[in-house]
Amino acid sequence: MTDCIFCKIVKGEIPASKVYEDDAILAFDDIHPMAPVHVILITKEHIATLMDVDKNHTDVMGRLIAAAQKVAQIKKVAAGGFRAVVNCNSDGGQVVFHLHMHLLGGRKLEDQLG
Amino acid sequence: MTDCIFCKIVKGEIPASKVYEDDAILAFDDIHPMAPVHVILITKEHIATLMDVDKNHTDVMGRLIAAAQKVAQIKKVAAGGFRAVVNCNSDGGQVVFHLHMHLLGGRKLEDQLG
Repeated sequence: MTDCIFCKIVKGEIPASKVYEDDAILAFDDIHPMAPVHVILITKEHIATLMDVDKNHTDVMGRLIAAAQKVAQIKKVAAGGFRAVVNCNSDGGQVVFHLHMHLLGGRKLEDQLG
Repeated sequence: MTDCIFCKIVKGEIPASKVYEDDAILAFDDIHPMAPVHVILITKEHIATLMDVDKNHTDVMGRLIAAAQKVAQIKKVAAGGFRAVVNCNSDGGQVVFHLHMHLLGGRKLEDQLG
């Protein structure tokens, strides 16, 4: 997607503070962190929203979860705990329409889920 | 897991307001909803946390995402939007140690992610 900011990060056209990368997933620090650890994990493939995931994406979704585990370990929040959030469409608070997971940790997250 | 409340819901030993069910996933309304739509989706298999997901769970994780899409449609929040949240361990706010996803919608969710 030519105008997608996350696709541009994948292509290296926009810089990002990379935390983890493999052939399917890229993870980078959120530029407006809401917790001591706030990493964005994206699929390298452009998938607009969680509603657009289909059976062909089962492997990449497994890779996304595995990458979240790796990020949690890299950021040393695996044992202490973290929250994984995927916002979908307007009411969900999705701003960039390229599938991404927020991984937040490093402090006690509130019961508030949004 | 004998003492796991979500395993007891799967076995029908504790009642729940079921929203969706297939052979891998069960979804039910949260008893303390934080939004007009607040559904808990669980794997029928007992997996303690997101950190315990491994390569053998790729299919069930795909099923979990597909079930979330179905729940979003059943609850009529697919187009308007929703938030999918998985809390992991103490700092993440995980209370029941049986893997589950919160699906929240029906109102504009705040930027606050916890």
